[in-house]
Amino acid sequence: MGDAEHAEERPLANGKTRVDFQTEPARYRHWRLAVDGDVAALVMDVDEKAALFEGYDLKLNSYDLGVDIELADALQRLRFEYPQVRALILRSAKPRVFSAGANIRMLAGASHAHKVNFCKFTNETRNGIEDLSENSGIKSISAINGTAAGGGYELALATDYIMLVDDGAAAVSLPELPLLAVLPGTGGLTRVSDKRKVRRDRADAFCTTEEGVKGKRAVEWRLVDEAVAGSKFDEAVAARAKEFAANSARAAAAPGIELKPLSRSFAPDGVDYGSVSVELQRATRTATVTLRGPAAPPPASTAAMVALGADFWPLALARELDDAILHIRFNELDVAAIVFKSSGDPDQVLAYDRFLDANQDHWLAREIRLFWKRALKRVDLTSRSLVTLIEPGSCFAGTLAEIPFASDRSYMLAPSLSSSASGGGLGSGRDGDNKPPAAIALGEANFGAYPMANGLTRLQCRFLANPADLDAAKAERGNRLDAARAQQLGLVTFAVDDIDWDDEVRVFLEERSSFSPDALTGLEANLRFAGPETMESKIFARLSAWQNWIFQRPNAIGEHGALKRYGTGRKPVFDTRRV
Amino acid sequence: MGDAEHAEERPLANGKTRVDFQTEPARYRHWRLAVDGDVAALVMDVDEKAALFEGYDLKLNSYDLGVDIELADALQRLRFEYPQVRALILRSAKPRVFSAGANIRMLAGASHAHKVNFCKFTNETRNGIEDLSENSGIKSISAINGTAAGGGYELALATDYIMLVDDGAAAVSLPELPLLAVLPGTGGLTRVSDKRKVRRDRADAFCTTEEGVKGKRAVEWRLVDEAVAGSKFDEAVAARAKEFAANSARAAAAPGIELKPLSRSFAPDGVDYGSVSVELQRATRTATVTLRGPAAPPPASTAAMVALGADFWPLALARELDDAILHIRFNELDVAAIVFKSSGDPDQVLAYDRFLDANQDHWLAREIRLFWKRALKRVDLTSRSLVTLIEPGSCFAGTLAEIPFASDRSYMLAPSLSSSASGGGLGSGRDGDNKPPAAIALGEANFGAYPMANGLTRLQCRFLANPADLDAAKAERGNRLDAARAQQLGLVTFAVDDIDWDDEVRVFLEERSSFSPDALTGLEANLRFAGPETMESKIFARLSAWQNWIFQRPNAIGEHGALKRYGTGRKPVFDTRRV
Repeated sequence: MGDAEHAEERPLANGKTRVDFQTEPARYRHWRLAVDGDVAALVMDVDEKAALFEGYDLKLNSYDLGVDIELADALQRLRFEYPQVRALILRSAKPRVFSAGANIRMLAGASHAHKVNFCKFTNETRNGIEDLSENSGIKSISAINGTAAGGGYELALATDYIMLVDDGAAAVSLPELPLLAVLPGTGGLTRVSDKRKVRRDRADAFCTTEEGVKGKRAVEWRLVDEAVAGSKFDEAVAARAKEFAANSARAAAAPGIELKPLSRSFAPDGVDYGSVSVELQRATRTATVTLRGPAAPPPASTAAMVALGADFWPLALARELDDAILHIRFNELDVAAIVFKSSGDPDQVLAYDRFLDANQDHWLAREIRLFWKRALKRVDLTSRSLVTLIEPGSCFAGTLAEIPFASDRSYMLAPSLSSSASGGGLGSGRDGDNKPPAAIALGEANFGAYPMANGLTRLQCRFLANPADLDAAKAERGNRLDAARAQQLGLVTFAVDDIDWDDEVRVFLEERSSFSPDALTGLEANLRFAGPETMESKIFARLSAWQNWIFQRPNAIGEHGALKRYGTGRKPVFDTRRV
Repeated sequence: MGDAEHAEERPLANGKTRVDFQTEPARYRHWRLAVDGDVAALVMDVDEKAALFEGYDLKLNSYDLGVDIELADALQRLRFEYPQVRALILRSAKPRVFSAGANIRMLAGASHAHKVNFCKFTNETRNGIEDLSENSGIKSISAINGTAAGGGYELALATDYIMLVDDGAAAVSLPELPLLAVLPGTGGLTRVSDKRKVRRDRADAFCTTEEGVKGKRAVEWRLVDEAVAGSKFDEAVAARAKEFAANSARAAAAPGIELKPLSRSFAPDGVDYGSVSVELQRATRTATVTLRGPAAPPPASTAAMVALGADFWPLALARELDDAILHIRFNELDVAAIVFKSSGDPDQVLAYDRFLDANQDHWLAREIRLFWKRALKRVDLTSRSLVTLIEPGSCFAGTLAEIPFASDRSYMLAPSLSSSASGGGLGSGRDGDNKPPAAIALGEANFGAYPMANGLTRLQCRFLANPADLDAAKAERGNRLDAARAQQLGLVTFAVDDIDWDDEVRVFLEERSSFSPDALTGLEANLRFAGPETMESKIFARLSAWQNWIFQRPNAIGEHGALKRYGTGRKPVFDTRRV
């Protein structure tokens, strides 16, 4: 079944059996994180022999997913472990090369699914660099000492300020189209046109010129901010970084917290973390992700929160959820639907939210909220059907209520007439257990803390038709809402009687796994993001969709296609018909 | 070369050799246009034996491109031939069926390029229905008497008001995903989420439910505006149409003008119209489209304009340009680049613009401007490289200056030092001719009359980086700008000396035809539309890109895919890996 190029995934290097998103600076092979006072430098020095998969070398600071996992990790550590940092320099340790971009042999041999997921993750990492600037007060500078080609230049585009050495050789370029017959897949076109606002005809010329643009023309065309003579380059970069640090609004803060390794236990059909578990039902192509509420009330003070560090429940949960989603994306391609469940006390979840609200100016509380924002966006952008089951004993409240709102559908168990008559409102009547009836609760966090890629909160997006519905929901903050009320307010898709519950859920999951995975990807990518578009949503929805299409076309990936022929000395042969 | 499904285009029916976009009511096979006072009805009554291509029948009011060409023609005639119409009813002549949507057998057997171009054209037609309401005061109603499935419901979504007969059977549906493993390709998802603002979880349920939604639930879910009992349906539709007509701002106008047949002469390597010519350079995969300026000054009065009717130069040119672009899109798939040229007097072009400006409240002047807006959008959305050559004797002024601004690049001939020294500014020195030197001129029309799909004018979009550049350009209205000045103002990409001209243009065209057509499509779709997004731009850029991807995937079009297996009694078999 399926297309030939999809038939086998390339083996991971060193006999690994899954892509792992957890790492730490001591294990980095490709980056060095150097912090000097309020300025940090991320130095790219890719180890060409340390590729993630077998079959290619990472020459000239080219990268694969493994390189980007380290970058993403380093950015997280900057946020949490180095709260004193106020400016970031991205630079290369290789002479005359900043980065050659995504490794071409890796791309040429990757499955379609890996190419798409790889681009999505690298996009998320680059958006994280912009979030660092916009919301955490860490302005970033790219110090381009030589060639910044393709993904190398796209990485620079994610920083606030691009400095290019003016030596008659160093150039920025997006040579994907002329060289490989694909697009710059990591936001390059969108950032050129929408962030740097390069005039469209110049952008056209730039993106079709293999060798790129150098020096003064690069400045004139707005491709870089400054071209500096080689002899003055390092000094100029350092001075600019100092200037950015001085103007940063990030509070000079106390010591950070350590992002200690996640405690995970992998089994053949799942992963268990402290506050998250993933159970795979392979027969139904379902992954159940259960989020566990806090075991204790929130700490009494911000000092106590800092002392808890990575064990502080909201941070622990965000890290685990993020890792779980990435694990499913990359390692469990066959999962059709993610079923979210939760267990715990909704009031405790809301209490943590109130703690974070009350301390929103504290650097750690702020970074945790920003992490949740990014983790929830990762959920939104996950190409699987998302469904939340709201059952007795669950705790979809406040921050966790964003999960049903991020889902394509939610089902909420409504006590049946018989059980509510007999049980007096306690328990659902299912299995005679004593769990409290299914409830959902809203908090302040549902009304601004977690915008989606399109700039709207999930509830704003949900209630586009009638903003009064948003006001009605807002008026219910703090209340436990039962299924009838939640449905009336439009917060859940279906309130289902316990008599019908099992059948309805089963039929939905069976149906979902019977549909074409591709069509579902397209459907969900369109229906999840009503309303306005932002640069970020354009990158994921417009640019990525075109790139996915091109990644599937024989002109790129066919026997005679450009990706396959690159480096063979033979020119690609194209089907010339325009589509 | 190329993918198998691309290898042969399906033959046109009746031995035709090209898709023809010209028709007229007397030749319609599928629609009837009935005008009664200020209310028009477009009655869909598809002749199942009159398909455009061989190999399928158009059952149950399903449609192919031929059906949509008639619809597009009828909408144009409503604008120009029936200025008294103020409301439009779309209805079906078939019992219990409104429309079954795009014909599935047609889709299953169509080449990828045809599917994509077909969806683009039908999208443009539906956007035209919305433009009719927004800018021409013709509100539209869909009277759904039975099944409105897929493209049938998408057609209804383009109207202002959807009325559904409430008989327990009539339903609206978007069954593409469950039935065919593709998306609704004519704006359906975007209009459901962004126009009708259907809650996303309900939209998910709706789009995955083959049988669709009926009656009161369809109203509650905002899928239709009104569900009316069968016995009262016709009466209710008529009353609603009368009400819309009464509230329309369209001036009750004088008799319309006749859109008489275009005079065209087809040759093996081109088409000649009165004011437009298309010359194909097959060796270089180029189509040169030359626009000819007016032969006479504008008429003295609006009455004289009406008397000229379809011969009035701006209208004649718009019709011919529109037809030429569609001809290239569908019949000349191998063309890589469209080269725009013009010949004529720029001052005369500006004089016509001033005439239209001065009479902008006249219904015909207004409709001509709106036609130009749509024709220019058609150019923007044409998936070929677009380049304008601004040479001596050309007339890219005012409305026609939108052509270089719509192009991916423009080249403008600058008099060389030697020729300007000897010729005193007259002539370019090329070939010793006496044409006036290349000039471009702006008019009022470049600053608002012709917004792109993203809602910006082409100059706004061009000068996003610095709005002061827009002001500088505006200050030059009416002036003839030579190459140096035009380049200084940022209005052209490259000003090229006559010594280098031939080489530069040749190299550009060679380069363009050497690139992957698919990658160019993606590049241009991204770089042409910087800035904000609208529902329209989302339909073309987000929804269409995903659909194009899905149209290429084995799960839809492979041997075991859903499109291929539909109607065979055999279920599709999917590669279940999510991408």
